[in-house]
Amino acid sequence: MTTARAPRRTGLPGRPGYDLDSLLAVAVKVFNDKGYDGTSMEVLAKRLGITKSAIYHHVSGKSELLELALSRALNALFAVTTEEQATAGRYIDRLEYLVRRSVEILVAELPYVTLLLRVRGNTDVERRALARRREFDAFVSALVVAAAEEGDLRADIDPALVSRLLFGTVNSLIEWYKPRTGGSAQALADAVVALTFDGLKRQPK
Amino acid sequence: MTTARAPRRTGLPGRPGYDLDSLLAVAVKVFNDKGYDGTSMEVLAKRLGITKSAIYHHVSGKSELLELALSRALNALFAVTTEEQATAGRYIDRLEYLVRRSVEILVAELPYVTLLLRVRGNTDVERRALARRREFDAFVSALVVAAAEEGDLRADIDPALVSRLLFGTVNSLIEWYKPRTGGSAQALADAVVALTFDGLKRQPK
Repeated sequence: MTTARAPRRTGLPGRPGYDLDSLLAVAVKVFNDKGYDGTSMEVLAKRLGITKSAIYHHVSGKSELLELALSRALNALFAVTTEEQATAGRYIDRLEYLVRRSVEILVAELPYVTLLLRVRGNTDVERRALARRREFDAFVSALVVAAAEEGDLRADIDPALVSRLLFGTVNSLIEWYKPRTGGSAQALADAVVALTFDGLKRQPK
Repeated sequence: MTTARAPRRTGLPGRPGYDLDSLLAVAVKVFNDKGYDGTSMEVLAKRLGITKSAIYHHVSGKSELLELALSRALNALFAVTTEEQATAGRYIDRLEYLVRRSVEILVAELPYVTLLLRVRGNTDVERRALARRREFDAFVSALVVAAAEEGDLRADIDPALVSRLLFGTVNSLIEWYKPRTGGSAQALADAVVALTFDGLKRQPK
């Protein structure tokens, strides 16, 4: 996912120099703060402290920045779907693994996943991202259905609803999780899996 | 919550007449579509098909519309906190009741709750709404802590995290629930409670 890194700062003292990764990180922060539609190249250049032409040195425009950012989140999520624990074993365990890894990715790539989850489909880039999200959702739904068929899922909830509620819970983390104070990704993933798979009630001994 | 209703349409044929409730319903839809900040009185008047001065007949401006809308959602949620099943009995059962009723209110008042959950605190009205949301969250958190103290909650999740995950799950419904196709409020509330309190895994017999 990362490109070869140029030094983080170059040029005159105090003038920030960016490689594509560090430029993207700032752009994504601005998109999340102001909304993608509300962010002009002028605003971006000002926040980066560089000229617009310095941005065009890296990308063709803000649409390419959006595409790179959304791809980063989507590629991380799709990578999980080919990992061994998501593709072998009982389906309930694959599903649990996918939920756990999704929480970890959300924490590791929080600004990118936040941007992805706010996409509404106003441009071609956004519509392609939504199409990939639907593909990911279909992978999750298939695991839920298969887990139900293996008899590991409670029978009184519609599997379609299970998928939505599971990822509703995972995705809701973007509303409050703060990397510095929100606890480790591991503890968070454990809690989400415990709540959704076993429930918050104490199990009778 | 409702005021005395004037006839839904009055005046010349084809010219819509509004009482405060029906005017508010349209305004909330526009706020949700365009964002509150992005909605001017001109835009509202155009969507309503009436003049600005006809809006001022009902309210002092868009800020009052926002306050009325947010109060409608908040009042419905707070009403639950004084209901008998939320104030007597074991705390885990009160908590379950609160989650169930919250889902029902979210479904019944979907546009109003959606608006509430998107408030970011840019104006005094929004900040007051956020303060009342925090008060509601504190009520929920107290139930979670008390349920833990009664020994009914699994011990391996931080109660603060339980509150956030529970209402993260409930609130995520606004992202996908559609009144016409999303199933009954009852079925949805049952599913949310089943998932979060007992977990999605089939219980061993």
